[in-house]
This record gives sequence, C-alpha cells and structure tokens, in this order.
Amino acid sequence: MQKTKNNELPVLAIDIGGTKTAAALISPDNRVTDKAHSPTPVSEGPQPVINRIFSMIDRFLSQGNTGPAQLYGIAIAAAGAIDTDKGLITSSPNLPGWVNIPLRDMARKRYGINTCLLNDANAAALAEHRLGAGRGTNNLIYLTVSTGIGGGIIVNGELYSGASGGAGEIGHMTIDASGPECSCGNRGCLEVLASGKAVAGEAKRRIKEGGRSRLTDIVSGDMESITAEKVALAAGEGDRLAMDVISRAAGYLGVGMVNLANIFNPEMIVVGGGLSKMGELLLAPAREVVKQRAFPLCAGAVRIVAAELGDDSGLLGAAIYARLR
Amino acid sequence: MQKTKNNELPVLAIDIGGTKTAAALISPDNRVTDKAHSPTPVSEGPQPVINRIFSMIDRFLSQGNTGPAQLYGIAIAAAGAIDTDKGLITSSPNLPGWVNIPLRDMARKRYGINTCLLNDANAAALAEHRLGAGRGTNNLIYLTVSTGIGGGIIVNGELYSGASGGAGEIGHMTIDASGPECSCGNRGCLEVLASGKAVAGEAKRRIKEGGRSRLTDIVSGDMESITAEKVALAAGEGDRLAMDVISRAAGYLGVGMVNLANIFNPEMIVVGGGLSKMGELLLAPAREVVKQRAFPLCAGAVRIVAAELGDDSGLLGAAIYARLR
Repeated sequence: MQKTKNNELPVLAIDIGGTKTAAALISPDNRVTDKAHSPTPVSEGPQPVINRIFSMIDRFLSQGNTGPAQLYGIAIAAAGAIDTDKGLITSSPNLPGWVNIPLRDMARKRYGINTCLLNDANAAALAEHRLGAGRGTNNLIYLTVSTGIGGGIIVNGELYSGASGGAGEIGHMTIDASGPECSCGNRGCLEVLASGKAVAGEAKRRIKEGGRSRLTDIVSGDMESITAEKVALAAGEGDRLAMDVISRAAGYLGVGMVNLANIFNPEMIVVGGGLSKMGELLLAPAREVVKQRAFPLCAGAVRIVAAELGDDSGLLGAAIYARLR
Repeated sequence: MQKTKNNELPVLAIDIGGTKTAAALISPDNRVTDKAHSPTPVSEGPQPVINRIFSMIDRFLSQGNTGPAQLYGIAIAAAGAIDTDKGLITSSPNLPGWVNIPLRDMARKRYGINTCLLNDANAAALAEHRLGAGRGTNNLIYLTVSTGIGGGIIVNGELYSGASGGAGEIGHMTIDASGPECSCGNRGCLEVLASGKAVAGEAKRRIKEGGRSRLTDIVSGDMESITAEKVALAAGEGDRLAMDVISRAAGYLGVGMVNLANIFNPEMIVVGGGLSKMGELLLAPAREVVKQRAFPLCAGAVRIVAAELGDDSGLLGAAIYARLR
C-alpha cells in the first residue's frame, strides 16, 4: 500500500454487509465525522453492489473539501473470506457470487489513493480492542452475532489474520458435525445454529409445527416476517416458545465459546452484532455453558461481555487497520 | 524463573504422559543425549507419580557429573491444563485427581535450580516448529492424536499460551454438541470421537454388536485388549470393520481440522502422536474433509502433514521452552 505521510487526514471507511453498506469519514482520533448508508443489493451480484459503493464514495468526495488528496486512504471492511495481502474477497456466504473479487485494487485504481480491504468482523475486533470493551487486554476473541456469525482474534495485542487474511471465521466452526447444512457448504456451523437467521428459522419451524406464541400476533400471522429481533421482543414479554428458541441459540453460542476458551484461553470474549442487543438474555446462559463445559483454567480466565461500539465498530476498525499498515 | 547464565549446559527434560513418563538430558543444540522411561501409575494419584518422577531425576543427578549445578534447568511437560505462570497442573483428563498441583515449585524447591512447567502438546508444537515438520512457518497448529488429543499453537513464530497457559486444548473442542461425554466433562469433544481411545472403543462396540473383524483373532477373543494400534494393523490387512472405524475417526479429525483452518487460517497443521503412525490412512481422508468443508481461502493455505520428531518432541520442546524464558 502506498502511504501518504499525513496522519492528520481522515480515513474514508466502508463497511459492506449482507443487507446494507455504510460509509463514513473517520478522524485521526477515531471519531465518526460523517456517515451514510445504502442498501446492499446482494441478489444483483457483485458489479451493481460495487457500483453503488463507488457512488457512495463519489458523493463523499464531491461534497465539502474531501477530494482523494484530503484523505489518508480508503479502508473497506466486508463480510466474507478476505485475502488481505491480495485485496480479494475470495468468497462470502453473505455475498453470493462474490468469488475472488479484487475490490481493493478496483478502488485503488479508481481513486488513486491508499486502499485496504479486510474482513468486517476482524475490523470490529480491532475497534473493540482499541476503543471498546477490550481496551487493555492482550488476548481477545470478538464474536459478532447478527444475521450471520463472524469473528476476529486479537493475540498479543495485535489482530491475528492468519496465513492469508482468512483467520477468525468462528461462525464457521462446526459444533454439530451431523447438523444442518450451512450457507458456507459445511455442516452444523455455529452460524447455522446460533445466528439471527437460526433464531428466526427455529421460531418459524416451531410455530409451523403447532407451537403457540405471541409471535403469531406480533407478525399478524405473516410467518415469513419473523426476525430474531421479534423473537427477542416476544421473549422479553415472557413468551415461552420465544424464550426456548433464544435459550437454544444461547446454549449453542455457549458451546462455541467453550471451544474458544479451551483453544485460545483468552482474557475476554466480546459479543457484538444485532443479537448482542438482547444482552443478558443471550450472554447469561452462554456464560453458564462455559462454566460447566470448559476447562476450569480457561473458564476462570475469560470474561464474556457485550461489545461497546455498536454498529460503527466495522467502520472504526477499518480505519484503525488502514493507519496500522 | 531464576536464570543460570550458562546456556552451554543441558536441560533435564521430563515428559509426563497418562501411561508413561520420559526423562532425558537435552544438549544446547537440541540433541537427546540420555533418556529413561518409567510407567506413570496414574491410578495411585499425584503423590506416588511425583515421587517416581523425582526418583528419575535423582538417578540422572547421581550418575556421571550431572549435579543440579551442571544443568541449565529442569523443564517439565505434562498432559493437562497447565497454568504456566503459577507452575500448576490445574486439571488433567489423563491424570485423574491432579487438581492445582504446584509441580514446578515442588521441583524447584527440591533441586534449587530453574524449573518450568508446560503442557506436553504445547512443548511438542514448539519442537515441531523449531526442529521438525514446521520449520520456517509463521503460523502452525500442532495436533497430537494418541490415547487423547492435545494441541499447540504457533502464532507469528511463537508459542501462543493464552491468558494463563491453557491455550491449545484442541482435543476438547466440541464438534458434536450432543455427542458422547468426554473425560473432561464436556460433550462431543474431538478427543472422544477421534482419539486412540475412541478408535479402540468404536471397534469394540461394533464387534460386540456382531460385527465381524480379524481383530477378534488378533486379540484372541480378548476384546478388552483391542487398541488403536491393533485396529490400524487390521485395517492395513484390509479388514473392513477396522477400516470403517479408522475412516470414521479420520472424518471427525477432518472436521476438527476444518475448524482450525477456518479459525486460524494456518500455514500448516502438523499431526503427531501414536495414531499419526498410520500416516495417510488417517491424513488423506482428513485432508479431503478440509477440502470439502473449509473456506477455500483457508483450505488452500494449509498443508496437513505428519510430525517429524516422534516421541521425543515433548522432551525437546520442553527444553526449548526452558531456554526461551
């Protein structure tokens, strides 16, 4: 990556998710000074999504005084397996059809400035470590639980990216080898058992099989509009079926955390993403599983806490990453 | 750890396993210059085992010119969850009754020299990285598959020990959340599905249920004497039941490796321990599972190879660890 020398300039950070894309200017002291959103039209394939991202960047550059020369660089976080060295989105369960897309170099060529690309949950891990729940820790695992499940690993105070930038795909750790098929092609992944999609799917399944739940009223009988958020709402109102569904997901999440505790012996597991807004409804049962199932040495060392930075963590982490390179 | 200054002295390394304990002098250039074995009488509890280990050390020190002052230090590798900072064996599925045993300080007090304590598979990982199959790699996961399954993690060229020395318990990663109970108290761990004990147990179970196998002849009808080694022998002779049992274990081992590939994106997974002597019989199917189930970015980056150092890797790694501290 060519380096501009001026660390006082903002980074233009982009966070490409499976449903929406965010863009923001991030100041050198890690404040989000401007932000925009756009839907991610995943069903249309990569090029229309990329065009839309470039339009967002163009708008940023055309307003105010923010030409490319007024930026430190562009930092792109995206859901998927990212080859950080080559700047490729190699594959992505949440971006169907994105195979070896050289997004970093496409942006670098178009704007002529420093550009980097990394996994969105890796970026969020970095942000939570530097600015959020994980400040001051040496070893931390970040888990984002939303539509899918992603992760990021901080080892000895640094983001661990692995041999080719693919490390941290914790959502695609098998915890039930004969379990349901996952969008990644594997079976029984943490994601297919404990993500938002899994929670919504399990609630639908139980209601279709005759289970009674306030969810039926909440969605006015339109089962397909059940989301994890609505299941959490019903659970908060004491709905038995919704509580059971969340308890099941939290149990699986706990099993995933046992694996992380036994493998990494981390100081902290930070849980972010949409489902983390459930707070203790999700974290308390998961913590209990860790206490019961992990090695006491590892269970005793790990604090399991909610993320602090909310939806901006991907953007903030991407900007931090850009300045580290 | 108090440091003697003389790096030209040998380390007295001890490797405490669930069935036997080895002790050896390791020269500064990592040669095993002397070696002794003793059974580990685990059923008698910690103190008789510790007494026997101290007797072994005493014998080393009484023969030749090797008094404590002629040693760089004592390095103890042991099966179990080791708190390396405190020098405790906190718990160990393979050493029942060992709970928070301060073995490091017991040895340090008795011999008055530098002593360190670490997990045996962590030690082996270090040895394979510095001297064996993993030379020249940056990121490596070591798996030892024998009676149990242990692991060690090399990140950025260094042993990763976690918050309290417990990292690398890869054998106690759940891959089947509703699977059989493991000796660690968890369920469906890799160890309970793919270890030597699992292979022997599954073969016994199938024969007891009426399965026909040459194993029955090999053990002269004494089912309890079936071991993973004998199952491998029968499989090598083309025995269907034995081949199926090993193929099942290799499949589970592959699922465990998919998790390691997706989480760590390592350059290499090195497989040691007794079962690795099966070679491709075990590794080829595991590799195939990784190819099918892991993210292409991660599957493409990882080489899955047999360990090179054999039974000495724990001793060698313990000595390397002592000199690093």
